[in-house]
Amino acid sequence: MSEHTRHERDFVRSFFTSPTAVEGEDDSAKMLRKAGRLRGLQAPDVWVPDNEDATAPNMRDEGAANIVEVVSEQGAEFPGEIHPRVVWHRDDPSTRYQGFQHMLEIADPDNGAVEHIDGFVIPEVGGIDDWKKADEFVTIVETEHGLEEGSLAMSVIVESGAAELAMGELRDEIGKPDNNLERLFLLVDGEVDYTKDMRAITPTGGLPEWKELRHNTSRAASAAGLISVDGPYDDIRDVDGYHERITANNAMGMLGIWSLTPGQVVEANKAPLPPAEGYWLIDADGREVELESQDGVEVYSGDRIELEETDGGYELEVGGDELFLETEDDLVAELLDLLDYVPSMDDIVDSMEEFEAAKEAGKGAIAMTQSATVSIDGVEVDIAQDRMWDEATYQALQTPITLFQDVYDNRPDQHDDLAELYSEDVVERAMSVGE
Amino acid sequence: MSEHTRHERDFVRSFFTSPTAVEGEDDSAKMLRKAGRLRGLQAPDVWVPDNEDATAPNMRDEGAANIVEVVSEQGAEFPGEIHPRVVWHRDDPSTRYQGFQHMLEIADPDNGAVEHIDGFVIPEVGGIDDWKKADEFVTIVETEHGLEEGSLAMSVIVESGAAELAMGELRDEIGKPDNNLERLFLLVDGEVDYTKDMRAITPTGGLPEWKELRHNTSRAASAAGLISVDGPYDDIRDVDGYHERITANNAMGMLGIWSLTPGQVVEANKAPLPPAEGYWLIDADGREVELESQDGVEVYSGDRIELEETDGGYELEVGGDELFLETEDDLVAELLDLLDYVPSMDDIVDSMEEFEAAKEAGKGAIAMTQSATVSIDGVEVDIAQDRMWDEATYQALQTPITLFQDVYDNRPDQHDDLAELYSEDVVERAMSVGE
Amino acid sequence: MSEHTRHERDFVRSFFTSPTAVEGEDDSAKMLRKAGRLRGLQAPDVWVPDNEDATAPNMRDEGAANIVEVVSEQGAEFPGEIHPRVVWHRDDPSTRYQGFQHMLEIADPDNGAVEHIDGFVIPEVGGIDDWKKADEFVTIVETEHGLEEGSLAMSVIVESGAAELAMGELRDEIGKPDNNLERLFLLVDGEVDYTKDMRAITPTGGLPEWKELRHNTSRAASAAGLISVDGPYDDIRDVDGYHERITANNAMGMLGIWSLTPGQVVEANKAPLPPAEGYWLIDADGREVELESQDGVEVYSGDRIELEETDGGYELEVGGDELFLETEDDLVAELLDLLDYVPSMDDIVDSMEEFEAAKEAGKGAIAMTQSATVSIDGVEVDIAQDRMWDEATYQALQTPITLFQDVYDNRPDQHDDLAELYSEDVVERAMSVGE
Repeated sequence: MSEHTRHERDFVRSFFTSPTAVEGEDDSAKMLRKAGRLRGLQAPDVWVPDNEDATAPNMRDEGAANIVEVVSEQGAEFPGEIHPRVVWHRDDPSTRYQGFQHMLEIADPDNGAVEHIDGFVIPEVGGIDDWKKADEFVTIVETEHGLEEGSLAMSVIVESGAAELAMGELRDEIGKPDNNLERLFLLVDGEVDYTKDMRAITPTGGLPEWKELRHNTSRAASAAGLISVDGPYDDIRDVDGYHERITANNAMGMLGIWSLTPGQVVEANKAPLPPAEGYWLIDADGREVELESQDGVEVYSGDRIELEETDGGYELEVGGDELFLETEDDLVAELLDLLDYVPSMDDIVDSMEEFEAAKEAGKGAIAMTQSATVSIDGVEVDIAQDRMWDEATYQALQTPITLFQDVYDNRPDQHDDLAELYSEDVVERAMSVGE
Repeated sequence: MSEHTRHERDFVRSFFTSPTAVEGEDDSAKMLRKAGRLRGLQAPDVWVPDNEDATAPNMRDEGAANIVEVVSEQGAEFPGEIHPRVVWHRDDPSTRYQGFQHMLEIADPDNGAVEHIDGFVIPEVGGIDDWKKADEFVTIVETEHGLEEGSLAMSVIVESGAAELAMGELRDEIGKPDNNLERLFLLVDGEVDYTKDMRAITPTGGLPEWKELRHNTSRAASAAGLISVDGPYDDIRDVDGYHERITANNAMGMLGIWSLTPGQVVEANKAPLPPAEGYWLIDADGREVELESQDGVEVYSGDRIELEETDGGYELEVGGDELFLETEDDLVAELLDLLDYVPSMDDIVDSMEEFEAAKEAGKGAIAMTQSATVSIDGVEVDIAQDRMWDEATYQALQTPITLFQDVYDNRPDQHDDLAELYSEDVVERAMSVGE
Repeated sequence: MSEHTRHERDFVRSFFTSPTAVEGEDDSAKMLRKAGRLRGLQAPDVWVPDNEDATAPNMRDEGAANIVEVVSEQGAEFPGEIHPRVVWHRDDPSTRYQGFQHMLEIADPDNGAVEHIDGFVIPEVGGIDDWKKADEFVTIVETEHGLEEGSLAMSVIVESGAAELAMGELRDEIGKPDNNLERLFLLVDGEVDYTKDMRAITPTGGLPEWKELRHNTSRAASAAGLISVDGPYDDIRDVDGYHERITANNAMGMLGIWSLTPGQVVEANKAPLPPAEGYWLIDADGREVELESQDGVEVYSGDRIELEETDGGYELEVGGDELFLETEDDLVAELLDLLDYVPSMDDIVDSMEEFEAAKEAGKGAIAMTQSATVSIDGVEVDIAQDRMWDEATYQALQTPITLFQDVYDNRPDQHDDLAELYSEDVVERAMSVGE
């Protein structure tokens, strides 16, 4: 039992769906079998055999049978958790009944899969009472099959305004004697269907950002001890875009994201962890640009910032605005406003160790300094950035380390990749910092 | 009875207010009479004889009488719905009682107007219990006048933090035996008074964006089966600004907006519908620019993007950043990141028909391709953009068509305008696609 | 009893925390004594002797004693309100009990401090039931010490998703017979701990913006008659950044902010009030730039906008985009889109007086005009900006004046500073406008 959730994992980075039955193949379970063999960074924290949207309606009975077959064969070896998605709809009782029947079949101990199944994913939920209907069906599945009540987790896809509002009630509803909503695990946004439910229109047909939905999902996860996960990112070739979406999500406390391919799984598994090497960013007239490290000097080589040493000072031009700075101190002050440092895993562990030692010695706050030589248009400037750390800073900045520790404890199959990425030494220190 | 709401209209694009009584005119009802004669694109989906803010306090009894007179004369012919706004305030019982009396008068069948009146608009509501007071008064109006309970719709102006929070409770409150809140129809934001209630200050006195309010209004409409409408846009000369506001609203699922003039009504009626001609957009260093179609070539003629063919490749400059691309394929890939296509009504209908045929043939997903020749600084490049369509895409992109169908069914007075805008053929196909 | 809250102040601009006991000093209460002597613009509206995060855990018993000592000595003369912060945590009963004991001690009339203490600040609250536990302890403190029930205010730090959700319930919970939540006063965001609770990660370790949290805090204050205050701004040297944050907050209705130094207090006290001199802003390709007033001409001297008079017209270039304008009228129209005026206190009072006179004369709306001569690259253009004022505009734009009046009534120690800033005459007129 973990601190954050009532489940084994405190964090879920990747949520990977696979079609359960594909028509026209010799083996309709082929994609399922393939996904079940993923290991290491390609294997998701949560694998979702998807018997809903990824599978054609007429193939879903076969899909349920395929889940049973593949999970009973491959589930014991799979390194992530397994949460099949069944059909459900807030507006359609017959869909709900079909989902119930598929859960009954998949969780039947005689079929051999349920010991490897961690829970079910319920899509298209509506208000909180609709969530309770799904919870009740899972309870019946458990008792009919002699499983412990609450042993199967339930995750939901939030893809309606009603479900978004329901998330605000979870803290009050979980724990009531007439439900088993303690089984709730993931809150997963589903932006395509949410767009339809909200009847939103964009000129190009592109998905709206739905920033408020993501905030509200993250907040609900925080308030109810659950884990929030963003929906699918359709353009699977756009790795940068996927990475930017994860960065934006992480800044809202949403550390997990849907993955449609093993390539996206790798990205989703790595992106919320600190980088192996630290680097500097510069705000180039509204665009964040990464400086290139060359022989210990951090070089800006774009055209949006220009710097020139002149008689008696410096001329700094940012996006067409010219500034004349008389002294190097003025220049440094100006550059510090534009620069920011992204610490590596090593840097973070260092700072935490340093703060822990200071606390031991009775100090409540210490300054951490990050210095560098920055080069713009050949002009080199030495800069140093200070940051005060107190207990609150320490705790707020500890999240990526806690995430790393959760990953390391639960995903032995990723140990080699992590050691290669960060070095054995950094991994070891990261595992022992912060108690 | 429609699917989305319990009312005739599933969508409301335009909400047009008219003063009910203007002092110093020979005929104080002159503006009301004029508005009641609007037809076609100039006529709103919902017309609001405004006996609150648009009418001076000392003219409101005369205003109520004018509503009765004008609506009984002109209401039968008016092509949109008619929802007078009466006075109301969460903090003032005497204002509420005045609003009740005006409703009693306007809805008196002996006065001949009520058969053309679809409901009332209640401003300045507070918490949900305040909404119930207004609902109760409408119920009394109905029973006193022998009208069917629930036959008069109720729309509210959301212009307080309390009302914003109340919207989150509607799904739970509608349907309780002690109210008739099923009569709820429109949730209309009122940003000027909301700004006052929130005690917000901007340096220039301009209205804040209130994006969260608009999201929450759209979400409440989605969760409770209602229709969301944005508040007035004061700068009536700024057509571009009004259009941009509608585009931003639509991306949140808020498809209706207040109109202060017949010119704004035309814009509000047209903006959420797909354009007659598709066009390409390019992201010119953060600014979206429409390409100009010239003899089948899409031309960018601004100064923010520069393109040059050089020995062995291409030089592409966007906002001061230079990129060297060795092959045309690299150039195309780069341009595809910047380009986006806005489909016409014809394009959307085409794609939907194509997907429906594919589904019939047993396919769950197909790729739609949009190609063009793009010209920047005289360099012409052929590009092609792919998009996968599955059932969820199809349904999410169907909203503008469903909106069009609702408009066509309910606004015969706009048939000629629509046929002229899109051609008879496109209109016909748009009416038969999507079941 | 004021209109907005149940407390003396309708507005709180500044919330200044001081450590209650610092180790290793001759006098551990030194910082507290120093803060208690602040006057005028350096003195906050609310002073918070901080017995939580600003004070080391092992110094907090001494801190409670220091609060008693310093407040009993200096409290009578302190010009702002005094609200000590005690320890509390939603997840830790022993912390809550410690906070209770400290409140009992601080509020003991025998100790002489409580007559100068206006209330307590409770950090780290969770769901609404946790708020009620704190309220109950304050009630017990009051009754044990013979103080009137409800006489001690309670403010909370919102630093968890659970507390953010609880704010949405306040309007329903305040006034219930089993609590004294009417004592609620400030809703203060605490973004560092909120970031931890939400488990958010940013690459640089910088705080996320948490715009939704701030909106929801402001909304809750509006709905429940409370006052919203933003959390600390750590970079105390970055005065511009602090000012920008306040401006952004004000546009959400959040008019108060935490201050960590007397310098920040000055800024927090002044920023939400209108400026002494009005000025023009120009949108220079997405960056708002203030024009410089030179001999009655408003001069733009940056490089992002260029203007040239040519044969038969004007060439206007904004951020690389060139526009050719044939007439001066076209140029003025274009410039009006880019320009905006920030009115001074004097301007606002003028406009309000003008509107009040017009209303007296029976007019419901009047146009206010702001004109100027603008100079870009030496080309001078006369422009005039119109704005319609009606009752709603008048009331929405009245907020800064109401704020000023609240400050003037409650902070006689700032009268000299305000008279120096605005002139005696403007202060007098500002105090008598708006009833």
